[in-house]
Amino acid sequence: MPNSFGKNFTITTWGESHGPAVGVVVDGCPPNLPLTAEEIQVELDRRRPGQSDIVTPRKEEDRVEILSGIFEGRTTGTSISMLVRNADQRPGAYDEMKEKFRPSHADYTYQTKFGLRDHRGGGRSSARETIGRVAAGAIARKILAQAGVEFRAFVTQIHDITVPAGALDNFPALAEIEANAVRCPHPATAAAMIERIKAVRSVGDSVGGVIECRVRGVPAGLGEPVFDRLEADLGKAMLSLPATKGFEIGSGFAGTRLKGSEHNDAFISRDGAVHTATNRSGGVQGGISNGEELVFRVAFKPTATILQPQRTVDVYGAETELAARGRHDPCVLPRAVPIVEAMAALVIIDHWMRQHAQCGVFKF
Amino acid sequence: MPNSFGKNFTITTWGESHGPAVGVVVDGCPPNLPLTAEEIQVELDRRRPGQSDIVTPRKEEDRVEILSGIFEGRTTGTSISMLVRNADQRPGAYDEMKEKFRPSHADYTYQTKFGLRDHRGGGRSSARETIGRVAAGAIARKILAQAGVEFRAFVTQIHDITVPAGALDNFPALAEIEANAVRCPHPATAAAMIERIKAVRSVGDSVGGVIECRVRGVPAGLGEPVFDRLEADLGKAMLSLPATKGFEIGSGFAGTRLKGSEHNDAFISRDGAVHTATNRSGGVQGGISNGEELVFRVAFKPTATILQPQRTVDVYGAETELAARGRHDPCVLPRAVPIVEAMAALVIIDHWMRQHAQCGVFKF
Amino acid sequence: MPNSFGKNFTITTWGESHGPAVGVVVDGCPPNLPLTAEEIQVELDRRRPGQSDIVTPRKEEDRVEILSGIFEGRTTGTSISMLVRNADQRPGAYDEMKEKFRPSHADYTYQTKFGLRDHRGGGRSSARETIGRVAAGAIARKILAQAGVEFRAFVTQIHDITVPAGALDNFPALAEIEANAVRCPHPATAAAMIERIKAVRSVGDSVGGVIECRVRGVPAGLGEPVFDRLEADLGKAMLSLPATKGFEIGSGFAGTRLKGSEHNDAFISRDGAVHTATNRSGGVQGGISNGEELVFRVAFKPTATILQPQRTVDVYGAETELAARGRHDPCVLPRAVPIVEAMAALVIIDHWMRQHAQCGVFKF
Amino acid sequence: MPNSFGKNFTITTWGESHGPAVGVVVDGCPPNLPLTAEEIQVELDRRRPGQSDIVTPRKEEDRVEILSGIFEGRTTGTSISMLVRNADQRPGAYDEMKEKFRPSHADYTYQTKFGLRDHRGGGRSSARETIGRVAAGAIARKILAQAGVEFRAFVTQIHDITVPAGALDNFPALAEIEANAVRCPHPATAAAMIERIKAVRSVGDSVGGVIECRVRGVPAGLGEPVFDRLEADLGKAMLSLPATKGFEIGSGFAGTRLKGSEHNDAFISRDGAVHTATNRSGGVQGGISNGEELVFRVAFKPTATILQPQRTVDVYGAETELAARGRHDPCVLPRAVPIVEAMAALVIIDHWMRQHAQCGVFKF
Repeated sequence: MPNSFGKNFTITTWGESHGPAVGVVVDGCPPNLPLTAEEIQVELDRRRPGQSDIVTPRKEEDRVEILSGIFEGRTTGTSISMLVRNADQRPGAYDEMKEKFRPSHADYTYQTKFGLRDHRGGGRSSARETIGRVAAGAIARKILAQAGVEFRAFVTQIHDITVPAGALDNFPALAEIEANAVRCPHPATAAAMIERIKAVRSVGDSVGGVIECRVRGVPAGLGEPVFDRLEADLGKAMLSLPATKGFEIGSGFAGTRLKGSEHNDAFISRDGAVHTATNRSGGVQGGISNGEELVFRVAFKPTATILQPQRTVDVYGAETELAARGRHDPCVLPRAVPIVEAMAALVIIDHWMRQHAQCGVFKF
Repeated sequence: MPNSFGKNFTITTWGESHGPAVGVVVDGCPPNLPLTAEEIQVELDRRRPGQSDIVTPRKEEDRVEILSGIFEGRTTGTSISMLVRNADQRPGAYDEMKEKFRPSHADYTYQTKFGLRDHRGGGRSSARETIGRVAAGAIARKILAQAGVEFRAFVTQIHDITVPAGALDNFPALAEIEANAVRCPHPATAAAMIERIKAVRSVGDSVGGVIECRVRGVPAGLGEPVFDRLEADLGKAMLSLPATKGFEIGSGFAGTRLKGSEHNDAFISRDGAVHTATNRSGGVQGGISNGEELVFRVAFKPTATILQPQRTVDVYGAETELAARGRHDPCVLPRAVPIVEAMAALVIIDHWMRQHAQCGVFKF
Repeated sequence: MPNSFGKNFTITTWGESHGPAVGVVVDGCPPNLPLTAEEIQVELDRRRPGQSDIVTPRKEEDRVEILSGIFEGRTTGTSISMLVRNADQRPGAYDEMKEKFRPSHADYTYQTKFGLRDHRGGGRSSARETIGRVAAGAIARKILAQAGVEFRAFVTQIHDITVPAGALDNFPALAEIEANAVRCPHPATAAAMIERIKAVRSVGDSVGGVIECRVRGVPAGLGEPVFDRLEADLGKAMLSLPATKGFEIGSGFAGTRLKGSEHNDAFISRDGAVHTATNRSGGVQGGISNGEELVFRVAFKPTATILQPQRTVDVYGAETELAARGRHDPCVLPRAVPIVEAMAALVIIDHWMRQHAQCGVFKF
Repeated sequence: MPNSFGKNFTITTWGESHGPAVGVVVDGCPPNLPLTAEEIQVELDRRRPGQSDIVTPRKEEDRVEILSGIFEGRTTGTSISMLVRNADQRPGAYDEMKEKFRPSHADYTYQTKFGLRDHRGGGRSSARETIGRVAAGAIARKILAQAGVEFRAFVTQIHDITVPAGALDNFPALAEIEANAVRCPHPATAAAMIERIKAVRSVGDSVGGVIECRVRGVPAGLGEPVFDRLEADLGKAMLSLPATKGFEIGSGFAGTRLKGSEHNDAFISRDGAVHTATNRSGGVQGGISNGEELVFRVAFKPTATILQPQRTVDVYGAETELAARGRHDPCVLPRAVPIVEAMAALVIIDHWMRQHAQCGVFKF
């Protein structure tokens, strides 16, 4: 099921950029949860186009409609269907793409795989697909919030602008992240990032960067020993997002330059509980959460859509040139922040339910 | 199924470091493939302990026994069960670990998740679990080799020693990789790496590093648009390996410092086929292979087992000190090379079969 | 994923009887298939309420809307979302059910499992859920029709009225089945069945019966040796339909009264191909299709909703009496015929794709 | 994964009749369960060949070896691998089958599906495959026994000999079932059944019959609303057993001859709990257990292997004659009793774990 994710808490997404709508079906949601469309909308608004002057101006209200699985304001335990109508479609803006493959986009691979493609706005490869993920993630987040779990994704790097080392070692407040358009909780760096995004946009170019995500309140014991390690499922979740090129947890790639004696997280006893003195493990050991903060980072490439002319090939195999039109984000990271959080929440709730299924029912 | 991996070509592994045996069941293998235990053994020998003076001296022949799914030298299409007996067990060497949690190991998390653990040599969290992966991967590799797909993993970084930029841009020969104990196809760098591993081992310490893997001959069209992107499944596969902390494909984290105009891979026409002029995409666009080389990198942390005394906590919550004994690898990367290739092969064959299920049967 | 079915060709359904809509997401559909809403509608019209005077008079047009996965009239290989709005809702008609459990319905079990339930028209347990199955099945059927596979379900028994032995041994024409309201291709029996249904309805009672399904054109080789036998997956598909109590294939329960020498299907050679002289196997041997007609039967209990007063218990545990209101079918079989065919088609296409994935790609 | 069954409690079986061994991997087992090989052996002994004079005389001790997942006598939560060596192999006895398809066996379909087959004793299609199911089921049964769930399968029909109506309406004692070789708890009927089996065996023929299974102590709430209904998963489990042709639950096929007013199970209040006055539902309503006894029946065809000459076709397509040799059961039902119970236990434990994953962790 290539359009589904999760084992016990499962989502299935559908929809194209310029089709009638996009949506998601959530399966396995716990019953009796009070839930309104407005709660879903809060998260959708964080990923909405047009929310600031550094994102795509596509005009979409992205109003969610809940079609099933809710009765008298509560989840019933049956499948929850949610739908968002696409409003601002300019199919004519994509005519050139019908015959030319956009570099570093999915045009060529979709065409080769399926033998045809919906070229309008990237079709299924559009980031509008992530609306379903964010809507489903909003449900997972609400449930986990009641269990004391908090998610904080934020931008730590845009192009070559990075937050100063050590400046963001604490769990940031949501307000600090939402305080600026780029969603970097370090105001001075955020200002520079915003300038950089505007600068590249003004010349029809684009930039990428890194999002860090921290999760607080995850109990020890989530994740499976072998293939379904928590970091493996988090990694898959993040690498399934458009434009991602890398994932690391805890010390990540930098940690490979330490010796074992420098890298190991000593166990300590604090307030009667076992903790680690440092957190180079990123909250996961042997594939299983250890009760410390989950800390991981995701690399996003610069947006493939740029307005400068580019060398490419058309559907007949002839070399040609293409200059993109259509609205797009010069940098995907600000809007990707709630998407990263949504995917993290979907992984955590699924593993929580799995853990309970195996270890929480039958006790000996 | 936390001990299973893959959708149409599936493996299920089992076994502990100091139990009677480790093994794997392969399900969904194409029938009629000529297959012998000797072919499996070739790959197992590449991950075997004791193969050189920079890996663990644990004495294991790791002889594979095929118990099902083969008839008169050919696969029958039914489940293939393979088993390797554990030989060199020194359970007494692990007595101290019964009561003390080894830092940055899985001891504490297994204990917390399951309420008990097999402490001998790490039990299920031992890298001996990967024997099953390598045995299964050997089958996938044989099939894919006949379809023209080649896998080359190799070490590009140990501690702070890295292959010089640009020195390994070609697809290396297997013989170059196997020419030295550290499996780095750049001889001068390899020599330095080996010295470094010996140096840290001599003081009871450990190091990590980076493995790069390239896959040549993958046709365009493998991978799914949304959750089961090829890079997402490769990422999950690699992050499910013990000691991994990061995964990147193509330009990876470094690519986030480029602009879109610098990063995009222009399409070109060469010999009547569509190619990309550069390969920052790492062979994958929109989650689907584009026919170029797959190029990805995996970060391995320094081995958690070190012989220096470390601060830790015991199972009663009291702070204490631990100095590991038992045989171990001062650096896991040399033996991880065939494991990375095995996991890559399992991902590729599974997506190949999935692609044909959807797009290769019913034609319109 | 309790609301999903199938491995490579997968459907996920959602929706309640009196919610805004019901629908389905189809995942894994082959690309390039010409497909219109009208083709889906043909099958939906066969299960539609109000189609004759022996089914529920609920007024539903059941117009399907395709929301994704189609571009310029062809499937794109991405997930196909289809939706049918619920029109004729009379929530007030169900007020009594809010507090009383209807006998032999899902009220009590849903309440116990989930702690709450959408009592309006049975909520998710309503047969309106099968709209999604029929819509998805219409796609599968179209694909399979091009491959030469035909599905014929028909009613062979209503209450104690059965088609005479030997009267329906041939593959019936669709027109014969659709010629009468009860969908029994034996006109005299059909007339008696219709009278019986009207008779029990007139006294507020209900009846059940048996549907037989034959599938012609299935190639030998579909189905898996062990758990996913073709008859096991057909059985699961049928037993997942509301009101079913039994499933049998080929000789079924009656075959248990034969000796092996009477029951075995002798192999014969006909027109250069291997066939069986008889078909007590029902087209499946060892879990795998043998190229003969698939023949299976499904038992449907009498509709649980009856208008006569019944003894029951309310949500507070007190004994009480209930007389159902609301529109319902006095016999579900006529409308279940296209649903049985849809589920059969979903099983066959999935196993066809699975077979190709394992045995059709890599040849040795 | 055609050789796997279950979602949260999963088993994967492997092995052929005349290969070195057969076995199973159990994944997702709750940790901390005390478990010995002897406990597994008890159930294996109930399905063992040679246990009485009406079953196959093949000499197999069927001693189980546990290879993983147990530490100091308790399950660790990791995958449990179990193996039984095949001992009594007479490959020469099957030479004729190499070139001739046995009627109503899997020879022809395996050959057609896979292009080759292990013809010795049926290879993977042999009922020796069920050893893995019984071993895994023994674990599930032990866990469920502690939760108060009891399984009782027993033979109610052999050929045309049936237990008198009403004679077995109570939950039979295990000792009554095990008191005779045919496992029918009605002694007079059992004696007649045994005579019948001996009679058909003496003329080289075979018989089938019906097994009923009752499960007591299943709490209300297990099973899923739509595709994974409890009866659908029980049906799939049973129809995945060799030689099965039908499944029915509760009133089954006979219930189709009742009116709704006769068939519905009135709810009553007894000892402060909700019950049904009758149990035509067979313990399941709307796909979910209602707390009453589960009651279902499975039809087994007469053994396909008979010693009388039969008409068939060889692998070259030529018509020929075959008279089976090799040891076999003249009637599979006595040995199928523990297999039916094992599969039932696997379904129940899996749904129990699923139910708690969804409804037992997060409470609102």
